[in-house]
Amino acid sequence: MPIRVVVWNEFIHERENEAVKSIYPDGIHAAIAAALGGGDLQVSTATLDEPEHGLPQGRLDDTDVLLWWGHKAHGQVSDEVVERVAQRVYEGMGLIVLHSGHFSKIFKRLMGTPCSLRWREAGERERMWVINPSHPITQGLGAQIEIPNSEMYGEPFLVPEPLETIFVSWYQGGEIFRSGLTYKRGAGNIFYFGAGHETYPIYHNPEVQTVLRNAVRWAYNPVPRWADVEKAPNRPIDQALEKIEARGLSLHTAGQEGFR
Amino acid sequence: MPIRVVVWNEFIHERENEAVKSIYPDGIHAAIAAALGGGDLQVSTATLDEPEHGLPQGRLDDTDVLLWWGHKAHGQVSDEVVERVAQRVYEGMGLIVLHSGHFSKIFKRLMGTPCSLRWREAGERERMWVINPSHPITQGLGAQIEIPNSEMYGEPFLVPEPLETIFVSWYQGGEIFRSGLTYKRGAGNIFYFGAGHETYPIYHNPEVQTVLRNAVRWAYNPVPRWADVEKAPNRPIDQALEKIEARGLSLHTAGQEGFR
Amino acid sequence: MPIRVVVWNEFIHERENEAVKSIYPDGIHAAIAAALGGGDLQVSTATLDEPEHGLPQGRLDDTDVLLWWGHKAHGQVSDEVVERVAQRVYEGMGLIVLHSGHFSKIFKRLMGTPCSLRWREAGERERMWVINPSHPITQGLGAQIEIPNSEMYGEPFLVPEPLETIFVSWYQGGEIFRSGLTYKRGAGNIFYFGAGHETYPIYHNPEVQTVLRNAVRWAYNPVPRWADVEKAPNRPIDQALEKIEARGLSLHTAGQEGFR
Amino acid sequence: MPIRVVVWNEFIHERENEAVKSIYPDGIHAAIAAALGGGDLQVSTATLDEPEHGLPQGRLDDTDVLLWWGHKAHGQVSDEVVERVAQRVYEGMGLIVLHSGHFSKIFKRLMGTPCSLRWREAGERERMWVINPSHPITQGLGAQIEIPNSEMYGEPFLVPEPLETIFVSWYQGGEIFRSGLTYKRGAGNIFYFGAGHETYPIYHNPEVQTVLRNAVRWAYNPVPRWADVEKAPNRPIDQALEKIEARGLSLHTAGQEGFR
Repeated sequence: MPIRVVVWNEFIHERENEAVKSIYPDGIHAAIAAALGGGDLQVSTATLDEPEHGLPQGRLDDTDVLLWWGHKAHGQVSDEVVERVAQRVYEGMGLIVLHSGHFSKIFKRLMGTPCSLRWREAGERERMWVINPSHPITQGLGAQIEIPNSEMYGEPFLVPEPLETIFVSWYQGGEIFRSGLTYKRGAGNIFYFGAGHETYPIYHNPEVQTVLRNAVRWAYNPVPRWADVEKAPNRPIDQALEKIEARGLSLHTAGQEGFR
Repeated sequence: MPIRVVVWNEFIHERENEAVKSIYPDGIHAAIAAALGGGDLQVSTATLDEPEHGLPQGRLDDTDVLLWWGHKAHGQVSDEVVERVAQRVYEGMGLIVLHSGHFSKIFKRLMGTPCSLRWREAGERERMWVINPSHPITQGLGAQIEIPNSEMYGEPFLVPEPLETIFVSWYQGGEIFRSGLTYKRGAGNIFYFGAGHETYPIYHNPEVQTVLRNAVRWAYNPVPRWADVEKAPNRPIDQALEKIEARGLSLHTAGQEGFR
Repeated sequence: MPIRVVVWNEFIHERENEAVKSIYPDGIHAAIAAALGGGDLQVSTATLDEPEHGLPQGRLDDTDVLLWWGHKAHGQVSDEVVERVAQRVYEGMGLIVLHSGHFSKIFKRLMGTPCSLRWREAGERERMWVINPSHPITQGLGAQIEIPNSEMYGEPFLVPEPLETIFVSWYQGGEIFRSGLTYKRGAGNIFYFGAGHETYPIYHNPEVQTVLRNAVRWAYNPVPRWADVEKAPNRPIDQALEKIEARGLSLHTAGQEGFR
Repeated sequence: MPIRVVVWNEFIHERENEAVKSIYPDGIHAAIAAALGGGDLQVSTATLDEPEHGLPQGRLDDTDVLLWWGHKAHGQVSDEVVERVAQRVYEGMGLIVLHSGHFSKIFKRLMGTPCSLRWREAGERERMWVINPSHPITQGLGAQIEIPNSEMYGEPFLVPEPLETIFVSWYQGGEIFRSGLTYKRGAGNIFYFGAGHETYPIYHNPEVQTVLRNAVRWAYNPVPRWADVEKAPNRPIDQALEKIEARGLSLHTAGQEGFR
């Protein structure tokens, strides 16, 4: 069964800015979808201006891995869709957050931190060093990926300690950045990947594309959907695994739902 | 200089429910404040029904560690106050989330997960085992804390992998629960502590009180307030540590703020 | 291509002790191998009394995942074989350490800690609770595995904080134990699994067998062998990615090997 | 009560190599001890050529934090002393491993990994970026420490995922390195700090000295010595917290010690 992938993009700069349009004439989402396409990945795209940003519940229910690219319009993404995506991540959908998506509502929502960083747009050289050459995400790469022109993202990067640090970037101007980090939230695997400023052809870089393909496969969790991941079910006394009897004072009556 | 502690409580069950009132006549917050008081801790309380829930910005700015007890009225806490508390945690305020606070807005906000669990109110015996006897939070305890009557909280507990696992609880009815977990969000230390159902006198237990005192000291971060923790400042090209020159196409103009 | 699995056993109690012999007449290794066998796993066994404990370099080189059961004779395992196994783990071989293997040389070697715990042999009931129902290792299980008769292992368990906590056990006598923990050392995935005292038929339990099969697949790292994982190669100045020139004083002459 | 600190140095290059001698005429240990001295730290030194390398049991028993500098003579450190130091770390002694100490026996022993890396001695510029400005170890620093001449250490650095990443270094020649990492082993806090090649005056840098002072205070664990950290005591059936009776077959007789 193929892995069902949706590439989400706010799709604004590619239509408004000539520099970006020249690099991604059909949008960043189209370039990424083309790079992922084929093999066992079944790839489609969604954008901000579609109804429900192209992410109605039914479509998310049929999505295994979601990639997220946003930059200028984080604030225009509806809170309802953000909650819906978060819920699907908890249920087991993989999520790959790209570059300026560090400030997206969904990434901040799932990290629980500001996700702030330092930045500079100078077209300087970036080297993404592989910290963990035995991780699925780094297969097929050499020791580092050289990106001739990049936007600098610098530390401190206000995220929680990751599950694993996969990439750390070196910048010509003197900074470093943890540019590849993994997390788990509920049943969902999350990968933050720093590569991708829209005024440089970074998603046309074959090694960056290799990372994206690897990351989709890594993020895919084939286990059954965890439907009640947000529920807090009561375990009635008469069904306790060890025989017990109610003692002491009580707040809840039998069978009552818990508070939320 | 003393550590400035605020004990927050929704303070509802102690006024509505006779069982709870009999145990905590002045409220859970008062019992905890009395247990913490003295020595180097300067303790005050705040409750849901005060203006801004007793947590106006100025008071939070003067708070080093906040304890949070809520159960029935999580939904009545205003989103604005929740954001304010989250911001203070990022800046360095310690946060101790107690028992049913697992479902509080502020805990879910900082974890980025559902924080769901299983539960049963049977007054059964709980044993909180010390996983890490060399941690500041467990000093002064024996191998375990026995709580004669407790509400069962069971796994899976939908939180991220913690920084350290401090306590794991055994329940008479057959369940276990990771009942002491530490996290860091920005500069803020966070401790989740499972003890404390309101129909049992758990906060009158001297060992539970020891944990609370230890946890306040552990959560206190004496470093200067991280005022701009949510900012993403630009580092201008002419101030780069290594001399670079702008190359390639550009999205931002010099001195422009980044997008959010 | 099949996953090549070796089940290692010291194979002493099954020959010396009638109780154990009655449960595992051909040895624990044979029971585990039978449980794993078939499908995509190509399983063989090795025991302490074979030359080089059945683990010569050539065989380890052809092993993808090693399971380790030992109890009475940890001290008889040669340090040379232990180093060989550790090296293979760094290169990418998976390792599953079972029950009393917590005190094996190889586990202590890879954890860097004492790996001590508390214990009691009373045939009491154990419940292994699934902490992470979305992890590959717990697929096919319910909320918990009930083991009617088990040896109690209790906290504190002196291991480093794990990558992920997979199981926590409840014991009838009042203790708890983190009985399923994952680690990574070099390219090698490691799973400690507490189930398995030899005087009870625990490895005949279908759910325990499910865990073992899942764990083998999880531990298998299909990436190319990391042959030089212990090497510290010099990167000569004239091959630096950014052009630099030697400055200042120097300890090493060009091309010299580093110290170890 | 002062924190009792021992600075250990193999003390070879400072006597054999004129370049190193010119920078550290009395040895690296003397320079570090001078930098740490005063205030609440009671600092002494120990070297390889002293009896038992200056670390007899009695002295280690009276040591709260040990700093370790070695490079050329790792192999000359006796295994017995290494085990003794490891045991003290488990009991609660802090350990700070410096620079080329990444290949010391004690660091590899406690990490359980090869601790390998890449290197180049070119006197190039290093910038140690503060990843975690709210950590005790980074107090008093700016955003980064500039080291004008340094030895390059590059990734992959074969250590386990740390508790927290404190520093990441940028090198002029294009590499990066996780140069400040924390760990816990038993009750002992461990800090690896990459700064310190002996042909450059790095330990004379005031900011590096600030890190060392901070790290000593962070690594100091004031809790009582964990004397039996390596023991695995039996909990007899008749002392179980919950009443149980022996069932099933048995390997051990009552009161018998466990196997090791």
